[in-house]
Amino acid sequence: MKLLKEEILSKGIVLSDGVLKVDSFLNHQINPILSLEMGKEFVKRFHSEDPNTKVLTIESSGIAPAFTTALELGVELVFARKKKSLTMNDNVYTADVYSFTKQETNTITVSKDFITESDRVLIIDDFLANGQAALGLAQIVEQAGGTVSGIGIVIEKSFQPGRQVLLDAGYKVESLARIESLKNNEVRFVDETVLV
Amino acid sequence: MKLLKEEILSKGIVLSDGVLKVDSFLNHQINPILSLEMGKEFVKRFHSEDPNTKVLTIESSGIAPAFTTALELGVELVFARKKKSLTMNDNVYTADVYSFTKQETNTITVSKDFITESDRVLIIDDFLANGQAALGLAQIVEQAGGTVSGIGIVIEKSFQPGRQVLLDAGYKVESLARIESLKNNEVRFVDETVLV
Repeated sequence: MKLLKEEILSKGIVLSDGVLKVDSFLNHQINPILSLEMGKEFVKRFHSEDPNTKVLTIESSGIAPAFTTALELGVELVFARKKKSLTMNDNVYTADVYSFTKQETNTITVSKDFITESDRVLIIDDFLANGQAALGLAQIVEQAGGTVSGIGIVIEKSFQPGRQVLLDAGYKVESLARIESLKNNEVRFVDETVLV
Repeated sequence: MKLLKEEILSKGIVLSDGVLKVDSFLNHQINPILSLEMGKEFVKRFHSEDPNTKVLTIESSGIAPAFTTALELGVELVFARKKKSLTMNDNVYTADVYSFTKQETNTITVSKDFITESDRVLIIDDFLANGQAALGLAQIVEQAGGTVSGIGIVIEKSFQPGRQVLLDAGYKVESLARIESLKNNEVRFVDETVLV
């Protein structure tokens, strides 16, 4: 997605060979217009004859692109909680998500009320690195007996194994920007020449 | 806001005299159409000659209504973090927010990059109870030298002191639904007769 790649090149900050900071438009400050375009692009890429009935993401940075995708699809979105909220009861699906960066396991939670076996669920997240968060979301959809129609990612770190992990598990993956390398303080996209 | 009140009456669940669960359209599952309408309503209520330059909220349930407000205003939104993210450095504003419900203090964080002294900031949050989260957000705007143009709340628990706390601090407050009481398992709105 051209607009996103341009934003990454102009506003992203390479913190190390593995870390791209995009706080200025995705993870902390959000550009609503760019988010709207992301939603439209996800809907285009996951168009199928069987319509998606729900969008699922995880708090907090996934919410904006998942919201615009749900808006474009005309369906509701659900965000998994990293911590059970006070009003949640035990009627929930959970999945354990290991974070390689933080070296800790978090249990993500979704109420059983909001994903059912008749749902075709499009999973949206902001980053794909090792694929553990997306896998956890997919497990929750499958616990509910629903179908994962695909996994849409805003920024994929293609030098990490997440994409392959998700493909091996049988999911369709679409990433709006695929980063091949962050070496030498340069963002290099997959199938692209060096742009900065 | 009529549409919101109807949604509260049809889908909200009174858990106790003090707790209304609105997980099905605001805090866990999100109705994008209703959120869009909330954004439009906030923009209408906070219309002024000095345009708002930014919307500020706090993760996670504030993000959707803040997003639609920012979209309608044509400005960016910033969500305060409850926990510092890995890519955040020390260039941040912080405020301590005490939660009466959880009886704990959390430090909320906003990067100094995203709120400046030229900003007129509209603060949006999902719930108003004791007003501590909104006050913390307002403190952050003021640390940055910016101006708080107003505080917009989706659901105000008018039987708790938050609204008065914010008014006493000099802020303009607009709530899309004001709940006078949750007693006897009934949602009673301010200035309304019993509707359920």
